[in-house]
Amino acid sequence: MSEKTLGITAKKSEDFSEWYTQIVQKSDLADYTDVSGCIVFKPLAYAIWEKIVSEVDKRFKKSGIKNAYFPLLIPEKLLSKEKEHVKGFSPEVAWVTYAGNTQLDERLAIRPTSETIMYASFSKWIKSWRDLPLRINQWNNVVRWEFKHPVPFLRTREFLWNEGHTVFATKKEAEAERDEIMGIYQDVTENYMALHGLLGKKSEKEKFAGAEYTITLEYLLSNGKAIQGPDFHHDGQNFAKAFNITFLDKKEEKQHAWQNTFAITTRMIGIMIAIHSDDKGLVLPPKIAPNQIIIIPIFTKENKEKIIKKANEIKTKLKRFDPILDDREEYSAGFKFNESELKGYPIRIELGPKDLEKKQVILVRRDTNHKEPIKITSLTKTVPKVLEEIQTSLLKKATELIESNIKKAKDFQELKQHIKDQKIVLAPFCNEAKCEEMIKYKTGGAKTLNSPLNQKTNAKCISCNKPTKELFYFGKSY
Amino acid sequence: MSEKTLGITAKKSEDFSEWYTQIVQKSDLADYTDVSGCIVFKPLAYAIWEKIVSEVDKRFKKSGIKNAYFPLLIPEKLLSKEKEHVKGFSPEVAWVTYAGNTQLDERLAIRPTSETIMYASFSKWIKSWRDLPLRINQWNNVVRWEFKHPVPFLRTREFLWNEGHTVFATKKEAEAERDEIMGIYQDVTENYMALHGLLGKKSEKEKFAGAEYTITLEYLLSNGKAIQGPDFHHDGQNFAKAFNITFLDKKEEKQHAWQNTFAITTRMIGIMIAIHSDDKGLVLPPKIAPNQIIIIPIFTKENKEKIIKKANEIKTKLKRFDPILDDREEYSAGFKFNESELKGYPIRIELGPKDLEKKQVILVRRDTNHKEPIKITSLTKTVPKVLEEIQTSLLKKATELIESNIKKAKDFQELKQHIKDQKIVLAPFCNEAKCEEMIKYKTGGAKTLNSPLNQKTNAKCISCNKPTKELFYFGKSY
Repeated sequence: MSEKTLGITAKKSEDFSEWYTQIVQKSDLADYTDVSGCIVFKPLAYAIWEKIVSEVDKRFKKSGIKNAYFPLLIPEKLLSKEKEHVKGFSPEVAWVTYAGNTQLDERLAIRPTSETIMYASFSKWIKSWRDLPLRINQWNNVVRWEFKHPVPFLRTREFLWNEGHTVFATKKEAEAERDEIMGIYQDVTENYMALHGLLGKKSEKEKFAGAEYTITLEYLLSNGKAIQGPDFHHDGQNFAKAFNITFLDKKEEKQHAWQNTFAITTRMIGIMIAIHSDDKGLVLPPKIAPNQIIIIPIFTKENKEKIIKKANEIKTKLKRFDPILDDREEYSAGFKFNESELKGYPIRIELGPKDLEKKQVILVRRDTNHKEPIKITSLTKTVPKVLEEIQTSLLKKATELIESNIKKAKDFQELKQHIKDQKIVLAPFCNEAKCEEMIKYKTGGAKTLNSPLNQKTNAKCISCNKPTKELFYFGKSY
Repeated sequence: MSEKTLGITAKKSEDFSEWYTQIVQKSDLADYTDVSGCIVFKPLAYAIWEKIVSEVDKRFKKSGIKNAYFPLLIPEKLLSKEKEHVKGFSPEVAWVTYAGNTQLDERLAIRPTSETIMYASFSKWIKSWRDLPLRINQWNNVVRWEFKHPVPFLRTREFLWNEGHTVFATKKEAEAERDEIMGIYQDVTENYMALHGLLGKKSEKEKFAGAEYTITLEYLLSNGKAIQGPDFHHDGQNFAKAFNITFLDKKEEKQHAWQNTFAITTRMIGIMIAIHSDDKGLVLPPKIAPNQIIIIPIFTKENKEKIIKKANEIKTKLKRFDPILDDREEYSAGFKFNESELKGYPIRIELGPKDLEKKQVILVRRDTNHKEPIKITSLTKTVPKVLEEIQTSLLKKATELIESNIKKAKDFQELKQHIKDQKIVLAPFCNEAKCEEMIKYKTGGAKTLNSPLNQKTNAKCISCNKPTKELFYFGKSY
């Protein structure tokens, strides 16, 4: 890439879409392919995903969830077993109809999600209360052929995710899993990705196809659009009845089981990029960055050897932060500075001949651009402190971004105005699908995001005036 | 499962196929699904796969290979770009023709392998010698709709694997990667999976579709059938020419790049099961077993508390071996012993009231069934020693199994007889496809496995009598 085309030419505050498109490509996160809506996760993005997977997976395993792998392809008959579920997914299913030159007797769906193929197995595996709980997870790829405009990470036709599928003997046990799972997702998204989401229950209209209720974390992008993150669905006995998942309880009586499903997807990478990054490029929270430090030596032919030697010493000293030493000769230091900002290394360490004399480096924070000379001897003490400051500061900023954009509405006119101003609005709502459609129509597109869990009201629906006990967040969705 | 149906009823030496089918299902490794040829990787098998992935991936990363993720779906046009490649794969391709109710303009192949979609990107990414080497890997699922009889792990229509795809400026650099990659595969398969493979180069007939040559590790199952394990393909410039992967060298001259691809698949799980296991069930090498120890307390209502307490102490003591404590009340100790053998825990620790008195446990080796009382105080010293003995002994047995079944043939009659006796035969061979077909026909199905790398001859082809410098292993393939 030439120095001219390196930088991002759009401003985040002026043209979010163009800025986002450029950052994804120029920071080497993703690339488009010949299949519309399917992207390449380039090494930087995939390494971020590996970090997310590793942190979530560790916590799942500790909680007793076991990983498995079910087939990619689902026979049409199976996919159709739960009515609401098939209605929700079939418009987006990619269908396999041929193998080689042979037409298949039955079409096979590429999994848009794996309930139907997993539960066919679960119903064979579960016979007795001894077989419960069954808590299975898989990390895989799914395809949903959405016809809306695809956007890398945020809306792709193929994406990567975890799908947890758990089965319990009682509703109480099933529901007790909710806080544990959402706690894991919150822990990783807040403390690693530095993102603050709104936790709550989806409306009847927006819940998962086949679920009794859906819990989500919702985020706000800087273009005023809300977007859904990880989710947890309590399925009640819906699927257990459709797939005949039953067990003999301790009294030898046959019961239908209770189920949950939950997921975090590669969309989170897009949300994280969009929230933290700036006009210079990617900003990555240290705890999710594949490399926390880049060391850029500034050298000429004459002093190269001396400076590279010291740079290597520093690299070894800071080994536990996976530093990269950019000692390429074919690029200028200026080019490397710009590139390091584009690619979001949390800390840049510059080392030139004058620094060498003074036994120091220049330490540059990616998030604030703050530069400071640091004695080489105190680097191992300073670096972890600065990394922690960056991590804390990014979460604080992300929290402020969403919280300062939440408004309460007293009446429908206020709701409409706040929506127009690209705010998230908290308002009482009757939770009826028809009423939600009306609100969407009258506000030019606002939907419910979710309903905060422990916040109850005794008010009237902001739209239809029916008494309600529920407050909902509203916003325009990405 | 009732105690009656728990055990394996077929003998490995008498009916390998039935034995293998039973072990896969009864050891809880895999289950069949409604899609023929596609299995469920149950938690035990998936945990084994996670170990393989983790060890291989660690070594890839150390060597500088980066993980990425490319789309599952490949447009027909792209798949057809390299002639030999498409000829090799198109008979087995699963085709997506519809998305929802919309017929697609162009059919999309589910990747049988990702050369074609990756190299379309590589050709955009690579411009200059500065962009090389490019060493990308992905861990993913692929579909090959084989019409042969599917067998769990050994031959499935969907399987999991790594596919490494690397690009170099020179043939020399590309070929230098061969020993590194095959070394990684050998390290993990030998030192973790305790398997001994024959390293060599595939014949012209059997090499990968589109490759210049293919290096493999070949294994022998106890039914006398050989089976291919990990492979490495040097593609020369074949794909670079088909996909226009070029770069400007240091003299600013345009060159086609040189490429390799390499893979290890979930088939290895099947090979490992088949080689180590016995009529009682699964035998797992300690370094690949998800849990190296199972602790089975033998208790009655009266002494339960005391015994479980001690069993928990032992579990804590042995924590680093991920022990499982089977303290279920609803199953008898006898049932648990059988189940522990079926599931292949390398060490079983039995703790009954008499053992408690003597401050000992009974330590049972899964591979030899050897039982020994061990003082509880010396467990932390004994256990790692025994685990290492098991690991070493399994590799030794596996090595002997294959080596004792390799025969040299002086003439075609000998070759034919050894093949009939279910041996692997080493013989000089001209490496011509036609001749190989003739051998296959005349022996009732023997194929070349590969040609050992550093073993040369000055002999005549065992079939056509042409002078040749190459020795090949022959065998019947799974």
